[in-house]
This record gives sequence, structure tokens and C-alpha cells, in this order.
Amino acid sequence: MLRELTINDFTSVLGEGKATPGGGAAAALSASLAAALTSMVFNLTIDKKAAKDYPESVVTSMKEAREATDRFRNRYLKLMVDDAESFDGLMAAFSLPKETEEEKAQRKSSIDSAKERVLEIPYQLVKESFEMYDALKIATEYGNKNAISDAGVAAILIHSAIEGAALNVFINLAGSEVNEENISLKAQTDDYVEKSKSFKEDIVATVIDKIYGRQ
Amino acid sequence: MLRELTINDFTSVLGEGKATPGGGAAAALSASLAAALTSMVFNLTIDKKAAKDYPESVVTSMKEAREATDRFRNRYLKLMVDDAESFDGLMAAFSLPKETEEEKAQRKSSIDSAKERVLEIPYQLVKESFEMYDALKIATEYGNKNAISDAGVAAILIHSAIEGAALNVFINLAGSEVNEENISLKAQTDDYVEKSKSFKEDIVATVIDKIYGRQ
Repeated sequence: MLRELTINDFTSVLGEGKATPGGGAAAALSASLAAALTSMVFNLTIDKKAAKDYPESVVTSMKEAREATDRFRNRYLKLMVDDAESFDGLMAAFSLPKETEEEKAQRKSSIDSAKERVLEIPYQLVKESFEMYDALKIATEYGNKNAISDAGVAAILIHSAIEGAALNVFINLAGSEVNEENISLKAQTDDYVEKSKSFKEDIVATVIDKIYGRQ
Repeated sequence: MLRELTINDFTSVLGEGKATPGGGAAAALSASLAAALTSMVFNLTIDKKAAKDYPESVVTSMKEAREATDRFRNRYLKLMVDDAESFDGLMAAFSLPKETEEEKAQRKSSIDSAKERVLEIPYQLVKESFEMYDALKIATEYGNKNAISDAGVAAILIHSAIEGAALNVFINLAGSEVNEENISLKAQTDDYVEKSKSFKEDIVATVIDKIYGRQ
């Protein structure tokens, strides 16, 4: 299973000439790295000298945010596996027999539901990655200053996950029916990417200001 | 060693309250994922139906680019390990004894050379990640259309690596002497980030055009 591959083997398998794991899985891993880095920032802050002058309310919000980022780290890895599996499912559906009318109908129905799943996973990744920003804003504002670049890298990687997963939404939509649901999915995905870009740029600008002692 | 950790364990270790592995290592991993995805695009194209109408010169340039991305995948993982080790080296230098004058001098010299190394690694990552764009342009132009989103995700992830490593250059420079060399390092890093942003945006725009059949 993908989660149990070593870093070395994962990148090696990713490079092979098979469709999975592909960009969707890489985007999900990027999201998981972002969540982990944000947990790290909280772990270097909570119960440490960096937090000694913080009011209890700030410490509580950091602890709650850390609970979320710990959960997200694992959830995005789940989506990484789902992404690869859903695409394998689509390939399997395409190779179903299509001799008889019954087989043809069965194959079409399998392809349709596999396509739905292939489209659903990257959209989930877009949507759920976006949830990282609450924690990221807290980490950037209150996180240990020595780890401020880590909060910045986390923002960069979560935006990558969103932007990368969005490309997977688009390529799957391009092969799908143009209906109201799909038009709305496209608009919502565009909207997440745009908002994410602005949030990420704000966080990176704040990180750079903090690095140079301007904040 | 980091490269031998499973994906699961790597993200878990990344989330712990230790300074390493941190954002620098995550940025290097992002670069390695980008290189692997680009290799994948070439592997799904070269010697496949997707390349059957290409002139020999295009196939040759794809093969050469694949040699580069295979090499980069491994090289960026090496930088991931180096990033964590160099920072551990700096921490070790800080904890050297400082009782006698001799010890103080030894400690200072160890800290200085460790700081240099900590600054050098993310700068190398910025510089060497930038080398991915030649291969990425070829993959975007000639890669299998079914894998065009993978080329897009690769561009997104290599830009993340560059932007993320740049934050590490900046945070390390902020703790270093302001001299000509460091001022030039800052300017060069800014320059790489800016150029990378523009290259990445061009590639993503091309990918989206190709997804919607506009190119």
C-alpha cells in the first residue's frame, strides 16, 4: 500500500510509466506534508518558552488547531490512496468485457460510477485542503518564530495541493457530461483555488515580514 | 535515514516537535515528487502511441529530459537528507562546551561553518530545482495528453520547492552577517523565485488550455 512505501520507493514508483500513483496522489501527499509541518510548528510552541507569555485562550486555540492538523495529516494520506485506487478502478471498468448487450450495459454502468469517484476524490482534496488555512493562520500568528519558515512552507504546500488537485478535477470534468452539477463543481473549484492563492500569498508575506523582524 | 522512512512515518516524524526534518526537507521532497511526475509523463509518452507521429528529434529530447528528471528525483532526496543533517549539525555545534577560551574559539568556528552549510543547502535546492523547467516545458509540449495534468502538478510542486527553499534561505540569511556575498545570495534567490513563478504560471495555463482542447 502506498502509505507503507518508503520515500525512496514512493518517488521511484511515481516516476514509472503507470497512470497511478500520479499527480492526484502527489498533490494529496503535499497536503499531508503541509499538515505535518503545521503540527510541528504547534509542537515547537505549545508548552515551550515561545508560548510562555500567551494568554490561555491562545494556547487553547493552538491546541485545537493542532488536533485538526494531526487529523488532516492522516486524512490527506487516505485521499492519496483513494486517488490512486479510484483511477485503478476506472481502468478496470474500461477493461470489462463488452461482447454481449448485457456486458456492454454492465461495463457502461461501471465506467460511469468509477468516473464519478475519480472526479470526487480530487474535489474532496481541494475542499478539505482549504480547511487547513484556519490552523495555518494561527500557526503564522502565534507559532515559534524560529519555525516561522516552516509555517510558510506549509502554506505553500497546501496551496500546491489545492492547485494540483484542481487540475485533476478539470481533466476529469473535461471528459464528463456538461450538466449543472459539473458546471457548479468547476466554478467551486476555481473559487477555492483563487481564495487559496490569496490566503497563501498573505501568509508568505507575513512570514517574510517576520523573518526580517518587520512584524 | 529519512529516505527509508515510509510515507506514513515520514509525515508523522515531520509533525513532531523537533526542528528536523522541517520545511527544508519537505520542500526537497516536493521537488523530488515533481521530478518523478515528470519522469512519469515521459514514460507514458516515449515508445507509446502518444509519440508515434513525433520526429526522432523530439523523442531524443524527451529521452534526454527523462535522464535529467530521473537524476533530479534522486538528487533532491539527497538534498532532503542534507537539509536535516546540516541543521542537526548546527544544533550540535551550539551545544559544544564553552568553558575555556580554546573551547569558545572551537565552538565559534564550528557554529560558523555549520551556519554556512545550513544556508548552502536550501540555496542549492532553489538553484537545482530551477533546472527542472527545461524538462517540464518538453513534458508539457509533447507529453501524453492523458497525463497533461501530471505535468501541471509537477510544475506546481517544483515551484513550491523553490518558494519553500527560498524561505529557508531568507530565515538563515536573517541570522547571518550582512556582507556582499549574502546580499547577492538574497538577490539571486529572489530572482529564481520570480522567474520560477512566471514559468510555473505559463505551464499551468498551457495545461489548462490543453485540458479544454484549446491547444
